[in-house]
Amino acid sequence: MTAIDEHALIARYFRPLATDPAALDLRDDAAVLSPPAGCDLVLTKDGIAEGIHFLPGESGDAVARKALRVNLSDLAAKGADPLGYLVLLALPPDWTEDWVARFAEGLAADQAEFGIALYGGDTIRAPTLVISVAALGLVPHGEAVRRSGAVPGDVVFVSGTIGEGALGLLAARGELDLLGEDERARLVARYRQPQPRVALAPALRAQAHAAIDISDGLAGDLDKLCQVSGVSAEVNVERIPLSPAARAAIASDPALLDRCLAGGDDYEILCAVAPERALRFEEEAMAAGVPVHAIGTIVEGAGPARFTGPDGSVRLLARRSFSHTG
Amino acid sequence: MTAIDEHALIARYFRPLATDPAALDLRDDAAVLSPPAGCDLVLTKDGIAEGIHFLPGESGDAVARKALRVNLSDLAAKGADPLGYLVLLALPPDWTEDWVARFAEGLAADQAEFGIALYGGDTIRAPTLVISVAALGLVPHGEAVRRSGAVPGDVVFVSGTIGEGALGLLAARGELDLLGEDERARLVARYRQPQPRVALAPALRAQAHAAIDISDGLAGDLDKLCQVSGVSAEVNVERIPLSPAARAAIASDPALLDRCLAGGDDYEILCAVAPERALRFEEEAMAAGVPVHAIGTIVEGAGPARFTGPDGSVRLLARRSFSHTG
Repeated sequence: MTAIDEHALIARYFRPLATDPAALDLRDDAAVLSPPAGCDLVLTKDGIAEGIHFLPGESGDAVARKALRVNLSDLAAKGADPLGYLVLLALPPDWTEDWVARFAEGLAADQAEFGIALYGGDTIRAPTLVISVAALGLVPHGEAVRRSGAVPGDVVFVSGTIGEGALGLLAARGELDLLGEDERARLVARYRQPQPRVALAPALRAQAHAAIDISDGLAGDLDKLCQVSGVSAEVNVERIPLSPAARAAIASDPALLDRCLAGGDDYEILCAVAPERALRFEEEAMAAGVPVHAIGTIVEGAGPARFTGPDGSVRLLARRSFSHTG
Repeated sequence: MTAIDEHALIARYFRPLATDPAALDLRDDAAVLSPPAGCDLVLTKDGIAEGIHFLPGESGDAVARKALRVNLSDLAAKGADPLGYLVLLALPPDWTEDWVARFAEGLAADQAEFGIALYGGDTIRAPTLVISVAALGLVPHGEAVRRSGAVPGDVVFVSGTIGEGALGLLAARGELDLLGEDERARLVARYRQPQPRVALAPALRAQAHAAIDISDGLAGDLDKLCQVSGVSAEVNVERIPLSPAARAAIASDPALLDRCLAGGDDYEILCAVAPERALRFEEEAMAAGVPVHAIGTIVEGAGPARFTGPDGSVRLLARRSFSHTG
């Protein structure tokens, strides 16, 4: 423990981040926000702990960005434009001011990138490092995209590429011997710093019946969307977008495909779009700079989504998701 | 670690708490809230960690209530009526389902007591137990009570009694030999389960210029209110309300008075009220069932509040607040 106290930390590192008047300059017990008329607020809360969601020794900058981005990804999946956030920083006894300074730098960089502000929070001591973020977003009233709206016939889309989060975790742990050093480094970067699909939010609320962000694995998260929608899905494994690095890794070790389908930390968007809106959705996503790919179809029924291979055979997945709790 | 996973925990213990439609039955990535027109949202976030803010081995019920109540106390100090909350529960490897069940029971009891609902949250694994709550309250637009509105001449009020949180912590640690067993038990209960002054919120927004909740000690929190208001204060130590148990403890060991003035965990409200409104404030507080006492006056100047004893001498406090971080 160093000598600096909570109030000095807030003044030095967090007050400059409280750029919205709602934060009351972090000089009060709470933030006071006047939400614009005609809008719904979207609220999410996700935390990360050292040794579970990020590796011990991770820089403050990377931890801050990961903590924020997993929440921004939830907002994006609901079609919400992000507004701001509150953060709890639970610091272990061996914390350093330099680490906190880097943590604040990471928040500042992402505030600029995503156009958000810090509303408030809390810095506490704890035996180990835990960060919890509560994020707020806005949607026009009634336009939030839920998990529950998928209907049979909808096209299943995913943004970006799938599986790099899972491969990046393996690489970060030194458990991926394949690929060149540069490619492994790119995968690790992808695992450490998710890219929330904030730009896709307007297209989702305009075109999608249902959406979820992929945080626990494509297969398991598709199952969740299907379950609350009361439907099932069929996915063509050949259509799942993979990066060149993921393709190369799977070519060397075909078992890694399952890892990509069921691994966590992609933070891409999975959504269901009516077929007559599919083209428009692709165009709006492209205009927003977010690649999307159709990978399957929502079908009647219940139970897990079926993943079929090139010959039409069903691919059985030993695991369908990665739980940070289980 | 037991076999039950995050989704089973949510279904079994947390879904029954998500009684507001905004929570989407905890089956989605986020909550979607339609705030009533003409209101401001008040947002606060406070966390607690085992071994720092509560003693190891504390029951789930007590931990849940403490985590919620420290946030409800912040909302009350802003004159806000509580609406709901999101919770992060970071569970250590040795967590038990029974503990989580008790935790949910504690949340349920306080939801009923304070008329609030669970909007969402996250259950994660962590090396040690940490709970983070983000709470939302409502005030009519523009009526939030800030720390910054105190002006010279205002009467300084506190709710309830002061110092029992600090004495209760001593008793819980076995460091308070004075008093009978029953009185010590009452102090410990007060430390373990703060009583947020939610009922005082309407009187505060109607009558107070400024308010803060006392979480780090009366002296230090009064200093904070004065600093952001650009004023100072004078407090008559004789007028500070003390419970019979605190009086008895201080009679036996006069050094404990400083502990009461600078100790944390009271979760009472400290506020500044114009003198012409003081009587009305007392009446409204009494009608709400919350005792309040005038303890001093806001004065021009800067610097720490002066605490004067019965003979008019200034009482020097070695510490003015208790920081959970420092």
